[in-house]
Amino acid sequence: MKKSNRHRSKKIGMAPGSLVHVGEVKTAQPAVSIFGFAKDQLSERTLSTETLASLALPDAGEKLWLNVHGAHDVALIRQIGQLFHLHPLVMEDILNTDQRAKVDQYGDYLYIVTRCFHYDAKKMEIGSEQISLVLGKHYVLSFQERATGSFDPVRERLRTEHAAIREQGADYLAYALLDVVVDRYFGILEQMNDAAENLEDLLLRKPNAALLTQIHLLKRASMELRRAVWPLREVINSLLRNESAMFSPSTVLYLRDVYDHTVHFIESLEALRDLLGGMMDIYLSSVSNRVNMEVRALTVVTMLFMPATLISGIFGMNFEHIPWLADLDGFWFALALMASIASLMGLIFWRRQWLSRG
Amino acid sequence: MKKSNRHRSKKIGMAPGSLVHVGEVKTAQPAVSIFGFAKDQLSERTLSTETLASLALPDAGEKLWLNVHGAHDVALIRQIGQLFHLHPLVMEDILNTDQRAKVDQYGDYLYIVTRCFHYDAKKMEIGSEQISLVLGKHYVLSFQERATGSFDPVRERLRTEHAAIREQGADYLAYALLDVVVDRYFGILEQMNDAAENLEDLLLRKPNAALLTQIHLLKRASMELRRAVWPLREVINSLLRNESAMFSPSTVLYLRDVYDHTVHFIESLEALRDLLGGMMDIYLSSVSNRVNMEVRALTVVTMLFMPATLISGIFGMNFEHIPWLADLDGFWFALALMASIASLMGLIFWRRQWLSRG
Amino acid sequence: MKKSNRHRSKKIGMAPGSLVHVGEVKTAQPAVSIFGFAKDQLSERTLSTETLASLALPDAGEKLWLNVHGAHDVALIRQIGQLFHLHPLVMEDILNTDQRAKVDQYGDYLYIVTRCFHYDAKKMEIGSEQISLVLGKHYVLSFQERATGSFDPVRERLRTEHAAIREQGADYLAYALLDVVVDRYFGILEQMNDAAENLEDLLLRKPNAALLTQIHLLKRASMELRRAVWPLREVINSLLRNESAMFSPSTVLYLRDVYDHTVHFIESLEALRDLLGGMMDIYLSSVSNRVNMEVRALTVVTMLFMPATLISGIFGMNFEHIPWLADLDGFWFALALMASIASLMGLIFWRRQWLSRG
Amino acid sequence: MKKSNRHRSKKIGMAPGSLVHVGEVKTAQPAVSIFGFAKDQLSERTLSTETLASLALPDAGEKLWLNVHGAHDVALIRQIGQLFHLHPLVMEDILNTDQRAKVDQYGDYLYIVTRCFHYDAKKMEIGSEQISLVLGKHYVLSFQERATGSFDPVRERLRTEHAAIREQGADYLAYALLDVVVDRYFGILEQMNDAAENLEDLLLRKPNAALLTQIHLLKRASMELRRAVWPLREVINSLLRNESAMFSPSTVLYLRDVYDHTVHFIESLEALRDLLGGMMDIYLSSVSNRVNMEVRALTVVTMLFMPATLISGIFGMNFEHIPWLADLDGFWFALALMASIASLMGLIFWRRQWLSRG
Amino acid sequence: MKKSNRHRSKKIGMAPGSLVHVGEVKTAQPAVSIFGFAKDQLSERTLSTETLASLALPDAGEKLWLNVHGAHDVALIRQIGQLFHLHPLVMEDILNTDQRAKVDQYGDYLYIVTRCFHYDAKKMEIGSEQISLVLGKHYVLSFQERATGSFDPVRERLRTEHAAIREQGADYLAYALLDVVVDRYFGILEQMNDAAENLEDLLLRKPNAALLTQIHLLKRASMELRRAVWPLREVINSLLRNESAMFSPSTVLYLRDVYDHTVHFIESLEALRDLLGGMMDIYLSSVSNRVNMEVRALTVVTMLFMPATLISGIFGMNFEHIPWLADLDGFWFALALMASIASLMGLIFWRRQWLSRG
Repeated sequence: MKKSNRHRSKKIGMAPGSLVHVGEVKTAQPAVSIFGFAKDQLSERTLSTETLASLALPDAGEKLWLNVHGAHDVALIRQIGQLFHLHPLVMEDILNTDQRAKVDQYGDYLYIVTRCFHYDAKKMEIGSEQISLVLGKHYVLSFQERATGSFDPVRERLRTEHAAIREQGADYLAYALLDVVVDRYFGILEQMNDAAENLEDLLLRKPNAALLTQIHLLKRASMELRRAVWPLREVINSLLRNESAMFSPSTVLYLRDVYDHTVHFIESLEALRDLLGGMMDIYLSSVSNRVNMEVRALTVVTMLFMPATLISGIFGMNFEHIPWLADLDGFWFALALMASIASLMGLIFWRRQWLSRG
Repeated sequence: MKKSNRHRSKKIGMAPGSLVHVGEVKTAQPAVSIFGFAKDQLSERTLSTETLASLALPDAGEKLWLNVHGAHDVALIRQIGQLFHLHPLVMEDILNTDQRAKVDQYGDYLYIVTRCFHYDAKKMEIGSEQISLVLGKHYVLSFQERATGSFDPVRERLRTEHAAIREQGADYLAYALLDVVVDRYFGILEQMNDAAENLEDLLLRKPNAALLTQIHLLKRASMELRRAVWPLREVINSLLRNESAMFSPSTVLYLRDVYDHTVHFIESLEALRDLLGGMMDIYLSSVSNRVNMEVRALTVVTMLFMPATLISGIFGMNFEHIPWLADLDGFWFALALMASIASLMGLIFWRRQWLSRG
Repeated sequence: MKKSNRHRSKKIGMAPGSLVHVGEVKTAQPAVSIFGFAKDQLSERTLSTETLASLALPDAGEKLWLNVHGAHDVALIRQIGQLFHLHPLVMEDILNTDQRAKVDQYGDYLYIVTRCFHYDAKKMEIGSEQISLVLGKHYVLSFQERATGSFDPVRERLRTEHAAIREQGADYLAYALLDVVVDRYFGILEQMNDAAENLEDLLLRKPNAALLTQIHLLKRASMELRRAVWPLREVINSLLRNESAMFSPSTVLYLRDVYDHTVHFIESLEALRDLLGGMMDIYLSSVSNRVNMEVRALTVVTMLFMPATLISGIFGMNFEHIPWLADLDGFWFALALMASIASLMGLIFWRRQWLSRG
Repeated sequence: MKKSNRHRSKKIGMAPGSLVHVGEVKTAQPAVSIFGFAKDQLSERTLSTETLASLALPDAGEKLWLNVHGAHDVALIRQIGQLFHLHPLVMEDILNTDQRAKVDQYGDYLYIVTRCFHYDAKKMEIGSEQISLVLGKHYVLSFQERATGSFDPVRERLRTEHAAIREQGADYLAYALLDVVVDRYFGILEQMNDAAENLEDLLLRKPNAALLTQIHLLKRASMELRRAVWPLREVINSLLRNESAMFSPSTVLYLRDVYDHTVHFIESLEALRDLLGGMMDIYLSSVSNRVNMEVRALTVVTMLFMPATLISGIFGMNFEHIPWLADLDGFWFALALMASIASLMGLIFWRRQWLSRG
Repeated sequence: MKKSNRHRSKKIGMAPGSLVHVGEVKTAQPAVSIFGFAKDQLSERTLSTETLASLALPDAGEKLWLNVHGAHDVALIRQIGQLFHLHPLVMEDILNTDQRAKVDQYGDYLYIVTRCFHYDAKKMEIGSEQISLVLGKHYVLSFQERATGSFDPVRERLRTEHAAIREQGADYLAYALLDVVVDRYFGILEQMNDAAENLEDLLLRKPNAALLTQIHLLKRASMELRRAVWPLREVINSLLRNESAMFSPSTVLYLRDVYDHTVHFIESLEALRDLLGGMMDIYLSSVSNRVNMEVRALTVVTMLFMPATLISGIFGMNFEHIPWLADLDGFWFALALMASIASLMGLIFWRRQWLSRG
């Protein structure tokens, strides 16, 4: 998050619609792939920046899906933007890859921003990439920061002959893309839940200060994720209201399903956060408890030595008339006195359970 | 919760409406039971997967209730789905048994998801099963993960001759099913409240660290339960608005009652959570208080020995001219001095209540 | 709260409208009193269960108020319910005496549930009883769990000749009953505020662990009360919107007054809760502070003895050549050395204020 | 707050509209002042309770402002109420001086309750008085508990010849009165902010337990104030919606200004509360930190004495053959050993910074 | 914040629209600059207070932008206000430079208040200045407290020939000014994030009490900033609804962009606050942990000396018959006994990890 804000500040004062890439460049070579499909046909091409100019828009009956890897290539985005008559602000937003999820309506197309996430299990950090979708009557444009393979399942379904997805309109394709993005969120959740369970096991077996930092990191990642997914819920809710009428009623039923998944995901994150919060409480109180018990045990042991030390001091005094000093067994008697007092005290403390560590 | 997310991830990238069971298989043998009833008649059958094909839909005047135990049988769900013309998403949701409560409207039927819960008193964990209801004009389909006996009271009422429930429509049957599901929640609440009271008793009698973990577990269970029931409140509220017109006005009055129970249940859970939160506070402060008091008492006792030890050291010095050393009663005098100083200090500490543990 | 849930579970699986008493039986002998009144007349009767059958409904110009003490008598409630054509759910709710405040509209009458409270100053617990009101065009039915005298002021006003209340309709009577119920809440608040002030005084004079439990109990009572009154606010707000048109515009003005009182009461409870929360914070920090200070003071005193003990050890060593040992004043010199070092240290600690307890 | 609730309970069970003063009597002698004004004229009178009867209502073109000091005089309020045809509930509310801010619409006049505050810097407590405004088409009635001088600036403006306020209607006068009330809130805020800054200075220079109580009191005062002003925000917002059409469009513009001030005031209180909360955190952690550091330092010093004491004990043993005992410099050698070990340990502790207090 | 409230109180009781500057005077010499522009032309002038009187309003086709540095000059504001027929409240608000963001509609112009911020990295404090915008059909007036250079990028764009901004209306200019104000917020965020990262680094390397104060200051600054920007979100949202119809539909698209930035900024602040809150938790628990560990280690070391001291005391007793006293190696034997017991205890403590500091 912090880094992205740093990128953003380089645009301060520029005119709106100024096409400048904001964010990290995540792939060396941008790539454009195009699917043209109708009920019975499918054409699939990969274009370079040069051949893009020759792209002809599809026929009336055909639907087009243009996917771009590498949303940092200003020239490429401008070229596609002009081809599809995109608003300058849309092009600007595609290039600005650190935005929150949103949906904007522009005349005859919708611009949807969503994010896909990856979880770095080692650093316990959430990374994210922006996915921009432009949904027109007969086309879908998708812009990713790099090739993550998120959309591969949709490609597979398109390539299958007689697939239902070919018969549907561009709105259904947009739904399918949103669906796979949201579905992948649950993989992240699984990883984070595994990490949380590992931490819980370690916590119960042997709490140490390093765990606290890890709980903190995981909690932070879960809150960051929740904050990033929360606006997506609003986005899909607004698509469900379908004020733009870009979605057919049958596709809206499917969108409702994506909405349910998003809400489920957010609630699972909240459950995770509560779990981690509870673990932190348990950790803090168990550590403080343990140290308190140990200090108490040590103090108790200290006390066991005090009467013995005093007795040794008493018989070390230089009075001329001290009983037992001249006795043959006086020394052993003194030692026995020391031992019996210490034992008596130990017994009392043991019965009060002051010697235990718990 | 964690487990269910793990199941879900196996569907990532599948086409919507792909019929795959997501969740745990909880019964070996799926079972289908069918009630056909009208004002004066009742037919009751149990079907196997084979005989299901021969199922004829009821006459106009008759109402049908088809109940399935074992919502993981893909073939069975598909068969029933085709018979009743269910949307692929509905079939998918029936098979996906880790969803939150929701209601979806599909043309001429409603699809309602709710959950029933059981409480594992030993592990202090909440388990849950999904119950799917499909409410059509003249039929109710109910899908459970396993035979829990939840619906037995409704079956009994149907079997009673001249029962009011036979005269009512399918909407009233759906209400009756929701009602017994929500009624059973209060049994769970009772168990959890009993557990909380037990913990409170133990806490007041003898606080120990194991209680903290149990309070934590119970609090977590109550929050999990609250989070799971919360969407049901919304579901019933939306049924009350009755935008689908599937419920008759007289049944809506009864639904209002279920709504009241749900709200009451959620509030009782919140009261339970507050109670547990208060118990945790009391525990933490009493433990920290107790240990502090004990450490103070020990420190005080330590101090009682210090003057005596110093006196013994003083009379142990090797000066040639030390008073009383040669006296007959010098030794006893020294001991008396030690004892009186210690008593004086003990008196002071006792008056300041520094020797008490509270 | 816990007990009430226990009662409720005995109804699991029953048909709605099954008339079973849920809750504690709080009076031995149910009693029914009836007021018939019009502008210039008033008739007052007390009926037994037997004579109730002969009850004739009032004339068109007359208003009727039927009050029942002992809402657990199923036969009685059924008899009254049939007389006034009450819906089975209303009768069920009257018998189920552990509900939250609500208002339900049924054709030509309103069913209002509210609760009256009593405060057990010794246990610091809130108890409550359900009051059910049925408001028809010309009658008000009120059902209490036992005779609490809550409605006595209204009875007095009815008995007064030329009282305004006789001229008004049944809606005004219902308002008057709600008004006395809400007015009595402030008596509870007063008792709880007194208890809180007492605790605060004790806290400032001499904090001890028992106070913490009492603060906790009082806070819990205030939260329980707030949770119970909160829905009443909604109830009166919904009566103010007057969608049922059961209230005349002039009575709505008076209801607004009850609404203000309810909101005022809830805010006072929140102020009380904040006060108690602050007291708990002060207590915890003052106790921890005090013990810390005491431990520090004890540690400081311990240090005062250390140099003296070391000096006595040094002059107790058995070297043959130790200065001053043979001097006449050597012993006194050593004691003076001990005393002066201890004094010097004491002075330093005193100036750093390490010997004080605060 | 607590006191006011005590007053209120004396009205339990009374008929609505019963005119009884609830609250503290704050002035001995009620006073009534009347301003009649039109564009070019102004009449100003002070009436006693006796001469009030002779009060003639103003002409059509004239506006009237009647201000009462001493809202506890039941006879006076009844007399004025009858003169202006006030609803019994309005009269009751004027006499009941412990209400929250509200606005009630009655036919052709509005009844507005607001409160003015004073801050007792010594006790750090907020006191408040009720100000009731009745706004009719051509008159404003204002009722204060005692003469606070709040309205003096408005009087001054009225007395100025050609003042804009004379040309405006009664609605503008009501606005002007609300405006001065809200303006005075900022004086309170200033005092409380000064107190908070003083506390912060003291906290950074020398934290002690008395500061904690003061922070707590100030925080409580700020929350009490916020709770009391919050409903005023709603009141002015509802005046802005102007459903009663009592305000002219041009006056609504001015009311918007009062609304902004109220919101600003509430936000400043929240900032103050956050500041105080942060101060409390800093205090608690700094105190606990300081004591911990001190205890550590003391423990460290204790350790410096231990080797020396052990050495003196070793050379005090009564073995016949102990090296150095007979040496001339043996004693000095032992002392040097003690000193060098203590120095070495001191050096180690100093390098670990265990002797510092921070 | 505190200072501004102090300024405000000097206006208590003044008539509304009284033109008095409230706030700090931040520039010595007020300056007025005027841009007149149309599609193909641009005139730029800087006026003094004297020459302002001669200002002629622009032609129909021309747009005018008047910018004022030094919003404290009452005469200047009054002159401009009269020229553009501004409402007295607008002039008052321009002079009152401590307001929250808001938008007010006045007949044919909008009055917008926003704030620009600067961050004092040393004191970790947020300072702010008020920016007032008046948007009419053909003109924009902007009032700043001092020359901050915020608007320089817009000036540059205006000066560029064929700039899109010259072709657009005054509404687009107002958008452009809001846009650069919001863009600059991200610079502040960057500085605060850098500070937070620095603190985190220091925290992990070497926690000390000074860091706590800095975390606290930074958290406070982030909350203050959030509270100040929050109403801006509402302002832009209300501009988006465009009830005043002052913005053309194409400009509303651009405003949506500013809205997104504002929301993004607020969310980033919340993430920063969470980060700082987590850092504070980590700090507190790590400090308390460290001190606890150190105290435990010291206590353990203390215990190592106790048996040795006791042994030396035992052999220092004056009994006549003590074994080994007469042995040649008795002394060495005693020392060996001391050393071996201490070693054994040290070994036990080391295996329990009680000597480590973590």
